[in-house]
Amino acid sequence: MRYELYYWPEIQGRGEFVRLALEEAGAAYVDVARRKGGTDKMLRLMHSPRLKEPPFAPPFLKAGKLIIGQTANILLYLGGRHGLAPKSEQGRLWTHQLQLTIADFLVEVHDTHHPIGVGLYYEDQKDEAKRRVGEFLKERAPKFLGYFEDVLKRNKTGWLVGRSLTYVDLSLFQIVAGLRYAFPNSMRKLSRKHPRVIDLHDRVARRPRIKTYLASPQRLAFNEYGIFRRYPELDL
Amino acid sequence: MRYELYYWPEIQGRGEFVRLALEEAGAAYVDVARRKGGTDKMLRLMHSPRLKEPPFAPPFLKAGKLIIGQTANILLYLGGRHGLAPKSEQGRLWTHQLQLTIADFLVEVHDTHHPIGVGLYYEDQKDEAKRRVGEFLKERAPKFLGYFEDVLKRNKTGWLVGRSLTYVDLSLFQIVAGLRYAFPNSMRKLSRKHPRVIDLHDRVARRPRIKTYLASPQRLAFNEYGIFRRYPELDL
Repeated sequence: MRYELYYWPEIQGRGEFVRLALEEAGAAYVDVARRKGGTDKMLRLMHSPRLKEPPFAPPFLKAGKLIIGQTANILLYLGGRHGLAPKSEQGRLWTHQLQLTIADFLVEVHDTHHPIGVGLYYEDQKDEAKRRVGEFLKERAPKFLGYFEDVLKRNKTGWLVGRSLTYVDLSLFQIVAGLRYAFPNSMRKLSRKHPRVIDLHDRVARRPRIKTYLASPQRLAFNEYGIFRRYPELDL
Repeated sequence: MRYELYYWPEIQGRGEFVRLALEEAGAAYVDVARRKGGTDKMLRLMHSPRLKEPPFAPPFLKAGKLIIGQTANILLYLGGRHGLAPKSEQGRLWTHQLQLTIADFLVEVHDTHHPIGVGLYYEDQKDEAKRRVGEFLKERAPKFLGYFEDVLKRNKTGWLVGRSLTYVDLSLFQIVAGLRYAFPNSMRKLSRKHPRVIDLHDRVARRPRIKTYLASPQRLAFNEYGIFRRYPELDL
């Protein structure tokens, strides 16, 4: 079965967390919206009145007849099928719990440039963004990164869960890559305090399939339409 | 087995979504932090260096040896055990997908009064809150409520998933109850456009165990420390 991934074609965004899992798994998939006419196809499917279980927003994954929405939910599904999560119930729940904490972190990253509303431009909420990013870089980013550092310290294997890579390691890789793009100065300082998180990022980047993917045109560049945006005035 | 729920004792907050599921299930549980010395016990457990899988934040649920964090993850676990979710993989994933959309909605509710940072008082971000709540009430709340209205319309059973109540129905009940508390005027208008959502709220409130629970002192009152806060200046 070939998966169909549906996500906005111009950005890494939340879709990237799914792409990284599919790539690491070596799974066959089509990135539907990046093909000609693909965005229209995505929107038609999403809004089809015949769909009994419509997704709220991209990304969603078509797996045979299943249509699965919400990033963490897609990873929960893929994790079990491709050896990217433990088999035990405890292990699956713990991996998913960490993924949901990544999701919380990601909302806060996004809101650094959109503290007032997703419907407004960044330019219309710049002053509020400056205030919010101050709190984020001083309090929130260290709290989240510190948490994952602590989990790595307790687990002692170099991975967040068990003895081998899971989908949440791929997601933490993406968080570090994104934060480095958005806040290069701040992340230099933050990196020093979170050596295990940085080391995990580096080891994920060296995985053969991930390395190939990151060097390919399939990996979109970070840009100022996505979740991680480089606005120098916000990199305090 | 008696569950132990750990959550801040002064507020409904995210813990309430778990409480509602436990109550509807008729499950035996202790609300640990609401007992004498309970908050200390919660913080000690959360920060215990012996914990291999520490939660990021309350709520978390102790189920035998398992400690499960993240509200939606706890519900995923309880749903399977107490008949509060379908048995099929598709049904479980769909229920969880809706729950994660509730979680996204809830973050946006919270951020109406905390658009700049959780570490600051509301009073220190009042101006930004007024801007954010405008976007929320005009764009975001109708989008989320409209989505759940649409899911109910497509499913045709009065419940969000399948033919009987699941944990996500309980969560949508709580969202409506909270929005009514926080934004009584705005919700009067919004309610008219979302009759199925309101009807679901009313039917959940009449479930025998939920009705008993809501009338008991165990149900904390909404207040201005929680997620849903009544600040008249934000009820546009």
